[in-house]
Amino acid sequence: MLDSVSIGAAGKKISALITPDNTLNVLSQLEVARLVEKSNAAVYETFRRCALAALNTGAETDNTKQVLEQFRDFEIDVVQQERGIKLHLKNAPGNAFVDGEMVQGIKEHLFSALRDIIYVNNELLENSAADFHSSEGITNGVFQILRNSSVLKVHRSPSIIVCWGGHSINEVEYDYSKEVGYQMGLRGLDICTGCGPGAMKGPMKGATFGHAKQRIQGRYIGITEPGIIAAESPNPIVSELVIMPDIEKRLEAFVRLGHGIVVFPGGVGTAEEILYLLGILLHPDNRGLPFPLIFSGPASAAEYFGQIDEFIGLTLGKEAQGLYEIILDDPVLVAQKMRAGMDVVRNYRKQTHDAYYYNWVLKIDQDLQSPFNPTHQSMSQLSLRPGLAPNLLAANLRKAFSGIVDGNVKEHGIHAVAEKGPYQICGDPQIMKPLDALLRSFVAQKRMKIPTEEYIPCYQVVV
Amino acid sequence: MLDSVSIGAAGKKISALITPDNTLNVLSQLEVARLVEKSNAAVYETFRRCALAALNTGAETDNTKQVLEQFRDFEIDVVQQERGIKLHLKNAPGNAFVDGEMVQGIKEHLFSALRDIIYVNNELLENSAADFHSSEGITNGVFQILRNSSVLKVHRSPSIIVCWGGHSINEVEYDYSKEVGYQMGLRGLDICTGCGPGAMKGPMKGATFGHAKQRIQGRYIGITEPGIIAAESPNPIVSELVIMPDIEKRLEAFVRLGHGIVVFPGGVGTAEEILYLLGILLHPDNRGLPFPLIFSGPASAAEYFGQIDEFIGLTLGKEAQGLYEIILDDPVLVAQKMRAGMDVVRNYRKQTHDAYYYNWVLKIDQDLQSPFNPTHQSMSQLSLRPGLAPNLLAANLRKAFSGIVDGNVKEHGIHAVAEKGPYQICGDPQIMKPLDALLRSFVAQKRMKIPTEEYIPCYQVVV
Amino acid sequence: MLDSVSIGAAGKKISALITPDNTLNVLSQLEVARLVEKSNAAVYETFRRCALAALNTGAETDNTKQVLEQFRDFEIDVVQQERGIKLHLKNAPGNAFVDGEMVQGIKEHLFSALRDIIYVNNELLENSAADFHSSEGITNGVFQILRNSSVLKVHRSPSIIVCWGGHSINEVEYDYSKEVGYQMGLRGLDICTGCGPGAMKGPMKGATFGHAKQRIQGRYIGITEPGIIAAESPNPIVSELVIMPDIEKRLEAFVRLGHGIVVFPGGVGTAEEILYLLGILLHPDNRGLPFPLIFSGPASAAEYFGQIDEFIGLTLGKEAQGLYEIILDDPVLVAQKMRAGMDVVRNYRKQTHDAYYYNWVLKIDQDLQSPFNPTHQSMSQLSLRPGLAPNLLAANLRKAFSGIVDGNVKEHGIHAVAEKGPYQICGDPQIMKPLDALLRSFVAQKRMKIPTEEYIPCYQVVV
Amino acid sequence: MLDSVSIGAAGKKISALITPDNTLNVLSQLEVARLVEKSNAAVYETFRRCALAALNTGAETDNTKQVLEQFRDFEIDVVQQERGIKLHLKNAPGNAFVDGEMVQGIKEHLFSALRDIIYVNNELLENSAADFHSSEGITNGVFQILRNSSVLKVHRSPSIIVCWGGHSINEVEYDYSKEVGYQMGLRGLDICTGCGPGAMKGPMKGATFGHAKQRIQGRYIGITEPGIIAAESPNPIVSELVIMPDIEKRLEAFVRLGHGIVVFPGGVGTAEEILYLLGILLHPDNRGLPFPLIFSGPASAAEYFGQIDEFIGLTLGKEAQGLYEIILDDPVLVAQKMRAGMDVVRNYRKQTHDAYYYNWVLKIDQDLQSPFNPTHQSMSQLSLRPGLAPNLLAANLRKAFSGIVDGNVKEHGIHAVAEKGPYQICGDPQIMKPLDALLRSFVAQKRMKIPTEEYIPCYQVVV
Repeated sequence: MLDSVSIGAAGKKISALITPDNTLNVLSQLEVARLVEKSNAAVYETFRRCALAALNTGAETDNTKQVLEQFRDFEIDVVQQERGIKLHLKNAPGNAFVDGEMVQGIKEHLFSALRDIIYVNNELLENSAADFHSSEGITNGVFQILRNSSVLKVHRSPSIIVCWGGHSINEVEYDYSKEVGYQMGLRGLDICTGCGPGAMKGPMKGATFGHAKQRIQGRYIGITEPGIIAAESPNPIVSELVIMPDIEKRLEAFVRLGHGIVVFPGGVGTAEEILYLLGILLHPDNRGLPFPLIFSGPASAAEYFGQIDEFIGLTLGKEAQGLYEIILDDPVLVAQKMRAGMDVVRNYRKQTHDAYYYNWVLKIDQDLQSPFNPTHQSMSQLSLRPGLAPNLLAANLRKAFSGIVDGNVKEHGIHAVAEKGPYQICGDPQIMKPLDALLRSFVAQKRMKIPTEEYIPCYQVVV
Repeated sequence: MLDSVSIGAAGKKISALITPDNTLNVLSQLEVARLVEKSNAAVYETFRRCALAALNTGAETDNTKQVLEQFRDFEIDVVQQERGIKLHLKNAPGNAFVDGEMVQGIKEHLFSALRDIIYVNNELLENSAADFHSSEGITNGVFQILRNSSVLKVHRSPSIIVCWGGHSINEVEYDYSKEVGYQMGLRGLDICTGCGPGAMKGPMKGATFGHAKQRIQGRYIGITEPGIIAAESPNPIVSELVIMPDIEKRLEAFVRLGHGIVVFPGGVGTAEEILYLLGILLHPDNRGLPFPLIFSGPASAAEYFGQIDEFIGLTLGKEAQGLYEIILDDPVLVAQKMRAGMDVVRNYRKQTHDAYYYNWVLKIDQDLQSPFNPTHQSMSQLSLRPGLAPNLLAANLRKAFSGIVDGNVKEHGIHAVAEKGPYQICGDPQIMKPLDALLRSFVAQKRMKIPTEEYIPCYQVVV
Repeated sequence: MLDSVSIGAAGKKISALITPDNTLNVLSQLEVARLVEKSNAAVYETFRRCALAALNTGAETDNTKQVLEQFRDFEIDVVQQERGIKLHLKNAPGNAFVDGEMVQGIKEHLFSALRDIIYVNNELLENSAADFHSSEGITNGVFQILRNSSVLKVHRSPSIIVCWGGHSINEVEYDYSKEVGYQMGLRGLDICTGCGPGAMKGPMKGATFGHAKQRIQGRYIGITEPGIIAAESPNPIVSELVIMPDIEKRLEAFVRLGHGIVVFPGGVGTAEEILYLLGILLHPDNRGLPFPLIFSGPASAAEYFGQIDEFIGLTLGKEAQGLYEIILDDPVLVAQKMRAGMDVVRNYRKQTHDAYYYNWVLKIDQDLQSPFNPTHQSMSQLSLRPGLAPNLLAANLRKAFSGIVDGNVKEHGIHAVAEKGPYQICGDPQIMKPLDALLRSFVAQKRMKIPTEEYIPCYQVVV
Repeated sequence: MLDSVSIGAAGKKISALITPDNTLNVLSQLEVARLVEKSNAAVYETFRRCALAALNTGAETDNTKQVLEQFRDFEIDVVQQERGIKLHLKNAPGNAFVDGEMVQGIKEHLFSALRDIIYVNNELLENSAADFHSSEGITNGVFQILRNSSVLKVHRSPSIIVCWGGHSINEVEYDYSKEVGYQMGLRGLDICTGCGPGAMKGPMKGATFGHAKQRIQGRYIGITEPGIIAAESPNPIVSELVIMPDIEKRLEAFVRLGHGIVVFPGGVGTAEEILYLLGILLHPDNRGLPFPLIFSGPASAAEYFGQIDEFIGLTLGKEAQGLYEIILDDPVLVAQKMRAGMDVVRNYRKQTHDAYYYNWVLKIDQDLQSPFNPTHQSMSQLSLRPGLAPNLLAANLRKAFSGIVDGNVKEHGIHAVAEKGPYQICGDPQIMKPLDALLRSFVAQKRMKIPTEEYIPCYQVVV
């Protein structure tokens, strides 16, 4: 099948000298000098990892460690020239090349990575142009990164649909997500996902045809972050790639840049994203703010969304359930509702004088903006009890899921769990029982990780 | 699967008033008046049929009669307005519309049909701006139609790969054609096919992704004719649609506009196209003219191409076999060879001062340019004997296959055969035996027609 | 001064081989063959003359004969090549070149001339695609020529201001016309003139700055005809050049393409244009049709316009005087009124469903559309009496002036008058006396011809 | 004359609310907040002054004080809105508006000013993104400002001709500069000047026509600085406006951005620019670096350039004289030489791997980069003696002229001289005598200031 065919010679490693394209601004001699120095080892390693991910497109694994292992001899150097820079690649993944030439889409991703890492580290952090310690500062910082990457389009009406969902969904679910993308593309909607395979790729592929048939220059925005990119390589269809500094800023980018969200079936990561979003939308300040949100999948996903819906009802209540709609096996209806939702969003932004290109009005608690660092201690101390305000409870539940994702697929978490055993999650039985049921159902449905390995839980629910 | 999902409500019929887009030139009051008159019933019926085909996208049948039957109440009227015209559609196929709006790509096809039919009938025939009675006149006429449809791009280097093959191929062959299209798209090649499903659609779909990844604005040219369009609706991916007046001018358009040809597995129609092309390339005047030609398919197509190759060897000889290359199960190699072939073509055109956008130098005998009218008589009188010059024999064999296609899928032929029994094809056993073997193998492989019905031969080989 | 500085070496003659640019469509082999033949001597001479005019830009004479004399060894040949054509120029005016390269704007004019002459002669006349014998046929033919030259812009709102006036006006008047052009350019109006110096050039030069300051891609349309072009070379600022087949079709092109007209001071030619226009606007069918019309000049032009106004009042009456407005010494007001007029025109066209790009609704009598052939006989037989309907009288007066222009600057007329003495114009004293007074004032003001020579009248008013 | 006609109602003052165009990036809420605060009075005053200059286009005075006096009630406020900002103007010059709408070119200048002032103050100074204390740091800072203003075009071949010369030259010189601009425009060269009237405007106006005739989208770059802009308003023809923080950075921008320089007649300011440039080109490191430099004017400017040439010969020697060419009364030759020079520059940059868009290789001593603060003391202490290396002597002479410009037209200097009497310039007679002669000739030729007032010297040459 087309999706799995590698572009170049898979497995082969290639070394090459790459000239920047227009993605990268011209650089001053000082900026080039700073880049060439490689003085900051951490920044270099981040860049190397993101570059590797951009090049390693089409890889089908969600184990970061494996990827990094396979390409541990990959190097990328910035070479100074009077005219600017070139990138010197050694032992790069062969499938980034066609007949010795790097695929243009991949080249753009490579320089997008360089652009974002330079910007975040040189401008925002070193020059302290952004204040990442206050809620307002973070929101402005996210804005600055998005602006610098040129994804904020002043003249475009609301049209960006963020698609969330698992990257290791089955074929029926994948085809369904493609069909939804196709129907949205036919209706002029743009797609924004988190990069990688599965529900991140299906809607973009489908929308490509929808846009082509309507002769529309559609947008395919990928937003990722250094911790996850290695395992979720951006597909070259992604026409605008942004690398946010961490997972919380990436999530904020999704909800402030996107105008509506479709959630496809997924696993714990998807549940985490849902809870993050409910944590925001349930905030009293956001009451009445239009935010089109649909959970959708093929008929076979009825059970999955039923369990999620039940869990939300039991823990966060009816108001939370009123924030989304579940549509099964009807791609046309999903696309029509999203299309209609765009008009509601546009009118609201007009009334409130809010920008079309960035949702300034949305209130996000600093707790949701700050990186949650899952450790055995922090995981065991999460407050999960019925008395909490629904938005706070949602935020804490989101942390629980975040920790499980960490233990499942991230280097850090895999190490920690391997060393100290599963994370302990404790709380009130009224919360813990539905949580346990939900997690068990994920395991039963093999939604915990890519289905090729037997799942060993990285957590323990403690009542 | 995405391919088979209808855009609008399948089966539903819609009436609508459509405003022309940029495809159609502004019209003078006289031109509008002439259009509105509907005076010429034959021209109107041609337009109605082509319009129906453009609207009936995604239909999966190769029985023209069925299509026309299903939409016999479809009407299309040109409505005069001081500013120009509108088209009034009645009972149009519902799947041309998304939420009540006609899909832009389909609208372009509709007006492309109008443009070509107006041009051929008003300019070329009524005003006698073209002389369709001489070989040179036909070649100029084909040029004029292509120029009027804006497909002749002066500044583009040779890049148009014509893809031929069956419209009812199996899934493995379809996926293979998609992959070849993808690899060609990655290498900047443009796709030109005859419209319709199967091998006409696969390469375009694949190339869409190849072009997207390379950030290339690729071309998807569809060339069809009124007699076949109803059964082979243009897919909306086709970005440039041209309707030639008959099958011979369509074939000439392919070989003069295209810079190379890939033949995928097909049936009799594909064999006809191969013989047409060999009839040209074997002409002594065309010796040495570079014309990249590859027969390709998945491993499972080995038998099919083996039989064709054997048939060509036995009837037309080694020189004919030297004009093409057979590549099995290697999309990358096909694409690489075509890419390399483009350079050869470009250099040759430069040397001979021939246009990149139209192959003026290629010699085509008038016999190949003239419509072959298959009747029981003309079919039985074809000269098929070993003593003929290879190019003439190829031309006659092509007529034999043309008659069989006619009997299989065209209204006229289906009627004739239903009435008078199968066509009789006679000739020298040295030719007739390989021919019979080839046709039998097509029947055995169910390549005669779409596989849903049992095939009843419309011909008889008489030794 | 910039205006009079030649581009290349004045006087020098240059031979060169010129490759067509995009103005000219790709040509078929047959079309090239026909061009190369030079079979039609009259068409060739027309082309040679227009080409010479395009190349002879900046020439400051209104004596066609002198121009043709000076360059009687100029030749232009169409050279056939497999890829298309080239133009071979011999003894071309040196000032069309900069350092050996033809100025791009002049090259465009050269190929515009070729385009229009091919179209009018091959398509419209030889193929009889236009019927120039009926009023409707002429209107459609004018439309076809304009469409073929791409000046009909479907998506542009009414904005074309036709500027009429003398080509040999004095410096104050010239600067004034420049200033009016500048003010119109600042207000987004496009300029259309008859090519040549004086009032044809001033508004374009001024508008160039107005458009530049407003960052507008303005239009500078020049409409001319073979009989006058040699004496009124198109300035290279003209960005769209159209050569109509004769003076009447050129006038019809002005009034159907333009959305408003400003008349600057001029001489007999200007008076002719005014009467042509009044002949149309006074037609009963055109009553109520909005057509912004302003006569304007510096304070010093008060006398000139006063005399014209008086003449119109005495001969055609108050209604005719109500069709225009005279504005002296106020470029801003002229531009503001024209700007406001465009909205009126747009609304009217919307209501009447008339095209923005071509004024179909305007009624023009066939008498005004047909070439008036001034001879001693036809001039003496003009019906000039008070009892005529004002639109008919205006039409006849227009012929009188047309004959005088002919006798003044056109080859044919200069010959005829040289041979048989001045034209005789007879009529009712009520008409003849104001006419005589007007013509005398033109002579007194040296408005009959370029001021460097003493004027010898080519007419005699006979009461 | 067109040049002096005001766009709107001269003298009238207008208040308006202006929406940003695309020049200004979208701003974050924090950036808007900082802008609105007006906290930094000095920055606000700089912005107000630059805005006033942009709006006061067409003003013909070189007395900054007068301009500021006339519009002392002009205010400009940044108004915060959720979607971004608007500018609230009070008592703005009426001639920035056409029928109540701000001229687009002026609006672009307004927001260019805002862009540059925000960038220099927020990014470069507050965030210390640039180090203005080292030579390298200044060169990088100049680069950053130019880059931020988008004037660095990566894909354009060398084509920028900087035009220097007086802003109050006479009409013959003005027309000459226009003609040179026209000839350069015809040859595809772009124009860069310091804004304002005279030799800053003529070449741009001329080039506008040259570009139009060649159908070229030419560039009209204006580089100015807050201290001089009020007296030298940018003409709206300027299509790219950059406001550098001070006069030295503006000069560095000229020599690193421009690819060649034409010097027209001027006064002391022009002499200062010539000496600045010789100070650089005479630096040993720059030997052999191609830098096309022509002094040119009409025949009547022979005396002026003769005196300059003589002065350079007597003080800096033959090598200095070898760096430029004097061409009188031959605009075509000037343009041809500059055109040829561009090829030399391109080849050199290619060889040295230097950027086409920024001359990194050129060595500029820090002394020439640092603002020279003319005071009575600093002026009297300039080292002006024959023993100095020519590049150092040129640099010091440049300071002397800089002080005189200051005393002539800048607020600061006019005040100082009014208070303490003329500046004293002392040095070796071998230098001082030619200097005195040159300055006297400037006075005699009325080149010291605009010719409407009697010149009172602001300096005294002391031997």
